[in-house]
Amino acid sequence: MKITTIIGSSREDSNSEILADLVTKDLTHTTIDLKNLSIQPIHDLRHTDGGFQFVDDDYDTIINAFLESDLIIFSTPIYWYTMSGIMKNMIDRLSHAIRDERFPQFKEKIKSVEAIVVAVGGDEPKIKGLPLIQQFKYTFDFLNMRFSSYIIGEGNKPGDILQDQQAVAQATLLNKQLKEL
Amino acid sequence: MKITTIIGSSREDSNSEILADLVTKDLTHTTIDLKNLSIQPIHDLRHTDGGFQFVDDDYDTIINAFLESDLIIFSTPIYWYTMSGIMKNMIDRLSHAIRDERFPQFKEKIKSVEAIVVAVGGDEPKIKGLPLIQQFKYTFDFLNMRFSSYIIGEGNKPGDILQDQQAVAQATLLNKQLKEL
Amino acid sequence: MKITTIIGSSREDSNSEILADLVTKDLTHTTIDLKNLSIQPIHDLRHTDGGFQFVDDDYDTIINAFLESDLIIFSTPIYWYTMSGIMKNMIDRLSHAIRDERFPQFKEKIKSVEAIVVAVGGDEPKIKGLPLIQQFKYTFDFLNMRFSSYIIGEGNKPGDILQDQQAVAQATLLNKQLKEL
Amino acid sequence: MKITTIIGSSREDSNSEILADLVTKDLTHTTIDLKNLSIQPIHDLRHTDGGFQFVDDDYDTIINAFLESDLIIFSTPIYWYTMSGIMKNMIDRLSHAIRDERFPQFKEKIKSVEAIVVAVGGDEPKIKGLPLIQQFKYTFDFLNMRFSSYIIGEGNKPGDILQDQQAVAQATLLNKQLKEL
Repeated sequence: MKITTIIGSSREDSNSEILADLVTKDLTHTTIDLKNLSIQPIHDLRHTDGGFQFVDDDYDTIINAFLESDLIIFSTPIYWYTMSGIMKNMIDRLSHAIRDERFPQFKEKIKSVEAIVVAVGGDEPKIKGLPLIQQFKYTFDFLNMRFSSYIIGEGNKPGDILQDQQAVAQATLLNKQLKEL
Repeated sequence: MKITTIIGSSREDSNSEILADLVTKDLTHTTIDLKNLSIQPIHDLRHTDGGFQFVDDDYDTIINAFLESDLIIFSTPIYWYTMSGIMKNMIDRLSHAIRDERFPQFKEKIKSVEAIVVAVGGDEPKIKGLPLIQQFKYTFDFLNMRFSSYIIGEGNKPGDILQDQQAVAQATLLNKQLKEL
Repeated sequence: MKITTIIGSSREDSNSEILADLVTKDLTHTTIDLKNLSIQPIHDLRHTDGGFQFVDDDYDTIINAFLESDLIIFSTPIYWYTMSGIMKNMIDRLSHAIRDERFPQFKEKIKSVEAIVVAVGGDEPKIKGLPLIQQFKYTFDFLNMRFSSYIIGEGNKPGDILQDQQAVAQATLLNKQLKEL
Repeated sequence: MKITTIIGSSREDSNSEILADLVTKDLTHTTIDLKNLSIQPIHDLRHTDGGFQFVDDDYDTIINAFLESDLIIFSTPIYWYTMSGIMKNMIDRLSHAIRDERFPQFKEKIKSVEAIVVAVGGDEPKIKGLPLIQQFKYTFDFLNMRFSSYIIGEGNKPGDILQDQQAVAQATLLNKQLKEL
């Protein structure tokens, strides 16, 4: 099972990254750190003559991750009650990717990709993070991806997440379940 | 009453902009078009020695809009069931703005700013756009801003929004109500 | 077009009923007032030998409304952020109705019924009533009914709803649209 | 710590009851089974001369549970994406209870009651049950009760819940945490 974690935090060793690391512990996986990539915002050209135009940035890294993974873990801090802006720009560009003539198999291929969301926030995330989960659900439904599970953790200062016993327990169990596959 | 509309679409004459224009019709207002500004993603340095660092981009335009407006209309297309990435990056940077020593009055001042959200999407937006509204609510609550109303419209192709009679009626009435203030 | 309004309030002339009346103004329609019916709570016997048992109460009134209507308007006050208990008990019994051998055509027939929700609450209903709308959506999706629109109004004291200009405008337009069908 | 579990299922040995039992395992607690009580729907008389009238049913059992408990566990099946009708009628009557002259201390006392929600559903409950959690949150916020945690489990047939390893792990950990208090 090929696993890729996409990291949406702007911090080193962020809480959301630490929690995702518990999920993938001792499992072979690839990590993509969005803050180290250059990804342009979407320019919506669906209804323009010529359609989407080639964008010269690092987005092919994302496309290849979707093409080559069986499981993608979306790890994001909860900034202002939803995913980080860099995670959102990455998601937005999927509108282009599913229409990109360079990757005609993309839309079909990703139907077999499983998705897990790991999100950590500081302001009542287990309540106020729920709309984020609902949005990811709508997104994965649109893409026909299976949204197999999510973990919402609470943390503010670096390392806080390890004090959230429920989130740690969920991540540890998910790690065990992934190993048994 | 000083009104600013912040436009989050990547398209010219987007449906969300058209709908926001109905709200501000014949009212003096300023428009900020995010796609024409350079705004960096947040770098979360809240827990780092020295805190947030000066970012040399166009964000002061946003800060000044918050400082000078009585009402801000957040006009965004619904991309993947939430606000556009460029709108999200703008929101994310509020974490810095409320701590920016150059604008010590910012956090207090914006408590008197009223917020309206105008969002247009193509995939059942009046249902699937509700988590977005909930997130804006949490955001405005955090900032102690009054979230006075929102309009969700349906549209996909350019101009579609004018076929959404309910959204047009809501915008027209809101425009009338703003004129009476 | 055969229209039935199901009233979930415990009050006479409730705000949610007044708002629903605006939607059906000058349109032939039937009204079912749940507070005047005796409807037992569901007894979940799906997994028991023999399955659901005949319940001797007024629920056939509801079943016939679903069988005979083209459009059902669910009018409910928002009590504690969701529908009233009497409306909920009515909804719960659908689990029995779709398996009731006396009405083998029920499950298929209701796929052609359109649903509208009219809900009125007193505590920020346009935000805090959104989970209720999401639940109705899931319910109508399960039943393959088309959820064509909803109106959330604000009101507390009797008659308050008429002060909610946005809700009144939405109801008036919806009434006009229904007349044009 | 005085713990009361309020059971909202209509089934014996329901999945939601089994999951709640894991939370209270080996802890002294009281169980209230709503299906064995007679609780009338609310009759909203807030705006009527004389206000709420005495209702001769078993609701005092609920009032006393709130008055005497430090922690209340609301255990409900997810019927049609929200709590069961009998649970809802119980909640609705809180509108009367907080105004009941026989219990003048009620509204103040319950501010110190902690709430936990345990909900089990059969149709993607970890997504489609989220609006239910949001409603409980609004309810507990209104009452100034602390909503300390919730568990959503998946199950349909009797006993299914024990196959939901994540829910079982969460309940087991919560049980351990409650014992350490």
